[in-house]
Amino acid sequence: MTTTIQGIAASPGIAIAKAYHLTTPDLTYEKRAIHNPNEEKERLDKALEISKQELEKIKAHTKKEMGDEHAEIFSAHLLVLGDPELINPMKDKISSENVMAETALEETANMFIDMFKNMDNEYMRERAADIQDVTKRVLAHLIGATFPDPALIDEEVIVIANDLTPSDTAQLNRQFVKGFATNVGGRTSHSAIMARSLEIPAIVGSKEITDAASQNDMIIVDGNDGVVLVNPTDKELETYRKKQETFEKQKEEWAKLKDEPTFSEDGEQVELVANIGTPEDVTGALSNGGEGIGLYRTEFLYMGKSELPTEEEQYDAYKAVLEQMDEKPVVVRTLDVGGDKELNYLDLPKELNPFLGFRAIRFCLENENVFRPQLRALLRASAYGNLKIMFPMIATLEEFRQAKAILMDEKENLKREGIKVSDDIEVGIMVEIPSTAVIAKQFAREVDFFSIGTNDLIQYTMAADRMNEKVSYLYQPYHPAILNLVNNVIEAAHRENKWVGMCGEMAGDPIAIPLLLGLGLDEFSMSATSILPARTQISRLSKAKLVSYKEKLLSMETAEEVVEFIKEKTE
Amino acid sequence: MTTTIQGIAASPGIAIAKAYHLTTPDLTYEKRAIHNPNEEKERLDKALEISKQELEKIKAHTKKEMGDEHAEIFSAHLLVLGDPELINPMKDKISSENVMAETALEETANMFIDMFKNMDNEYMRERAADIQDVTKRVLAHLIGATFPDPALIDEEVIVIANDLTPSDTAQLNRQFVKGFATNVGGRTSHSAIMARSLEIPAIVGSKEITDAASQNDMIIVDGNDGVVLVNPTDKELETYRKKQETFEKQKEEWAKLKDEPTFSEDGEQVELVANIGTPEDVTGALSNGGEGIGLYRTEFLYMGKSELPTEEEQYDAYKAVLEQMDEKPVVVRTLDVGGDKELNYLDLPKELNPFLGFRAIRFCLENENVFRPQLRALLRASAYGNLKIMFPMIATLEEFRQAKAILMDEKENLKREGIKVSDDIEVGIMVEIPSTAVIAKQFAREVDFFSIGTNDLIQYTMAADRMNEKVSYLYQPYHPAILNLVNNVIEAAHRENKWVGMCGEMAGDPIAIPLLLGLGLDEFSMSATSILPARTQISRLSKAKLVSYKEKLLSMETAEEVVEFIKEKTE
Repeated sequence: MTTTIQGIAASPGIAIAKAYHLTTPDLTYEKRAIHNPNEEKERLDKALEISKQELEKIKAHTKKEMGDEHAEIFSAHLLVLGDPELINPMKDKISSENVMAETALEETANMFIDMFKNMDNEYMRERAADIQDVTKRVLAHLIGATFPDPALIDEEVIVIANDLTPSDTAQLNRQFVKGFATNVGGRTSHSAIMARSLEIPAIVGSKEITDAASQNDMIIVDGNDGVVLVNPTDKELETYRKKQETFEKQKEEWAKLKDEPTFSEDGEQVELVANIGTPEDVTGALSNGGEGIGLYRTEFLYMGKSELPTEEEQYDAYKAVLEQMDEKPVVVRTLDVGGDKELNYLDLPKELNPFLGFRAIRFCLENENVFRPQLRALLRASAYGNLKIMFPMIATLEEFRQAKAILMDEKENLKREGIKVSDDIEVGIMVEIPSTAVIAKQFAREVDFFSIGTNDLIQYTMAADRMNEKVSYLYQPYHPAILNLVNNVIEAAHRENKWVGMCGEMAGDPIAIPLLLGLGLDEFSMSATSILPARTQISRLSKAKLVSYKEKLLSMETAEEVVEFIKEKTE
Repeated sequence: MTTTIQGIAASPGIAIAKAYHLTTPDLTYEKRAIHNPNEEKERLDKALEISKQELEKIKAHTKKEMGDEHAEIFSAHLLVLGDPELINPMKDKISSENVMAETALEETANMFIDMFKNMDNEYMRERAADIQDVTKRVLAHLIGATFPDPALIDEEVIVIANDLTPSDTAQLNRQFVKGFATNVGGRTSHSAIMARSLEIPAIVGSKEITDAASQNDMIIVDGNDGVVLVNPTDKELETYRKKQETFEKQKEEWAKLKDEPTFSEDGEQVELVANIGTPEDVTGALSNGGEGIGLYRTEFLYMGKSELPTEEEQYDAYKAVLEQMDEKPVVVRTLDVGGDKELNYLDLPKELNPFLGFRAIRFCLENENVFRPQLRALLRASAYGNLKIMFPMIATLEEFRQAKAILMDEKENLKREGIKVSDDIEVGIMVEIPSTAVIAKQFAREVDFFSIGTNDLIQYTMAADRMNEKVSYLYQPYHPAILNLVNNVIEAAHRENKWVGMCGEMAGDPIAIPLLLGLGLDEFSMSATSILPARTQISRLSKAKLVSYKEKLLSMETAEEVVEFIKEKTE
């Protein structure tokens, strides 16, 4: 009989293949007395060295297959392996307590893991996960266990696991791994993001898939509906093969629109652009039909490092993106650190409410030594394409004026130095703080464009941290207050002939798209893989009809009412 | 020569008298070996017992002079003294380490203080301060030192101290202590609040007053401008005596309006009401001319305890307030815990961003066992006066509907039980979350009134934690976005013939008052001592003129522009 397991749809598509269990090897070992501490230290060094080589290989492989952003996680792992603050205590333990390398490794690592895990800080908790991942690998080498090598898979399979670590996912061979299903994780967990980036159907958070499926069981993963079928009947197999075919056809249909502009059914044009994190993401943006870059998050340049990136490094990255995008628009957001995004080498304050704290433009305006090199790098790169710059977390007009003045100052400096700078750079702001959405009229006179960052805007407008599961139900993109704020921004901008984009998750959401089209949004920036489905959806929507619902929608009372109405009207 | 010291104006008025230094005694002691651990334990018990008796006395004195709310701090101190988790480790230390009671007390206390001080939690940090305060007292008794006794002061003085602990302030004799000046503290520090409540002129945060003033130096404390003059010249003394006279006259003028309603110069009526925390605050509200209670914070009933207050305890408190207020309106806010307000006995989650977390109505809707007894107590008390109930932190209409349904359910239950409940209870909401201010129109159809809580509304609208000094500059009550949101709420309410109050700090602020009058605010709720100055100010303002500035103010670009304009227009 078929076992049906519900999970979280993490990456779309349907996969049908045999189950392949990816399990961590047994890492228990027998404790024994040691005679020669130096020998143990050498064993530890050797295991560290082999692990390092493996991780370098995995990193290179990931970089090639998936780009810098995904490879970054292994830089973090390599940093752990090379950290004397972690390694020295292990060696000290071997000498002082006369224990095996295995014990010294485990006990020291566990101490750090416990310490970091209990910290009230997302970033440090992630470090705990890094140390755990790396420690397992080193331990396996010490006790002579073999780590599973997903690269060895040579037939079509669906990978089943409790969770996939970054190193697991990086080694998956796209030719043979048709899908995967895990017990833990959510839509934004690392494995889910990887699956979407690899375009492999996946479900996560199924709680029990490792128990429900045995090695070689036939499996169907439905990444559209978030369901896994174990040992399906012939009839089910047939149904899902048809569904698979339909989905593939749909993808083909989407692909036809790859090089087309975006028009609604009644001929109104909007722009569909991509969110990216690194120059390597440009390929995906273009191959998925992006008409530009709507949000280039520059944080990755600053992360996984021990010091600030130089102006040159930044210039190279910005120039690479602008050149690859040819003359298509590229909207770059200046540094947004602080809040939940920390950088070790910047001494950011520990805050009681980091989301309401010293971050983004607030930090940059007070640290011009960080801000100016980024602006210089951007200005120098502007000669190579169609650059637009936007400042994050703007709450007052003074902040925008101050940031723009620094930008203009650096422009003058560069010109004086004889360096070529474009004279057509649009300068805009992120609208992610309620105050700015409320007085958009006042801002619209001075900025060249707005880009609405819904992730934060919703969070602040509802006073609910979306990472906090006790209040995440209040993270309501369709709440009438959000629609009213978005509308206020768009109306204010259009009165001044300025354009409005959106670069939060909402912009790529099929329920939000008709709402936003009706409110008059000009530019939708989303993850690359959402662009073609969005273009297809928009081609079937009448903008005039959606505009006619506007007043009614803005007067609605609850998010539920909004969703019911728009679903009914666009079915 | 006069030494002039700048500090923070903490409590208004001018005081002239001799300096009286309040200093902590030398608490060092010589360590010696002990022979009989039991003797040390007895010494410790005795010191604890005496300290307990003293604190009971101070608590009773404070309660009588200043009311329950202020006495609460000593309940916390008494809890510390009786806490076995603190006391037992001290005794264990005496036995196991063979040390003096002094050492055991200090080392154990310091361990807890260090632990609590480093916690990422305002409440626990305050517990560290409590332990420190109490430990000093017990240690003084152990080593036979005398604690300063401000109760012994028998001539007119100005108290000079590094900081005033709650126990210091509580013992001050109003007859002789004419003012005080401290090195540390801010406008909302404990000593500042105490000074305003005692109506003694005070400055805090002067950094150097203890160095600048010697015992018996002549001192002028100007609590209006935040200045202290040490050894003033005769001319200065004369000037300040005149200022003092003017201020006293002004106070007399204010007092004339005590039993008057509040009218603008052009005859428009508004209501000035008080914020209170306990039934004892009602006296102050009435003697300062309060026309009602605009915010009764019910949290104090839940604080400094080891378990939830019973329905009976709550009923007694609510009934006492309603009876004392006769038929004047009393707006009670239901429980607002979570965020920075924690309760030990409720297992509230540890959150990364508590201000965006599980608090107030969010908590109450999920914990009906806490919510329903409060609603029952309120409903039962409603028979004794003019009760209005409001729910805090409402972000969606669903939350209001759900909370009101529970209230109505309890009302039915009580009626079925034959208990008298008023049928005229207005049910409203706090507007402190941007979403609610934005769709006030939708809410106005269903609520009986709004009360704008500006402290939180500003914080969320600007996405800036006002307790975080790195971003507190963004806490801008006069930001045009705040004015637009307030205006939106008032217009929406008036269209439905509902009234709007404000109970944040902004409502009592002399710069904000003309702005709010011009926007049409109906009810201003503030600390009792601000009511008479506000009534005087309003009697000199023309509402019609202020209304005529409205559109101009709402279109302004920055808070600075708003302040300059309104200052110029109302000078």
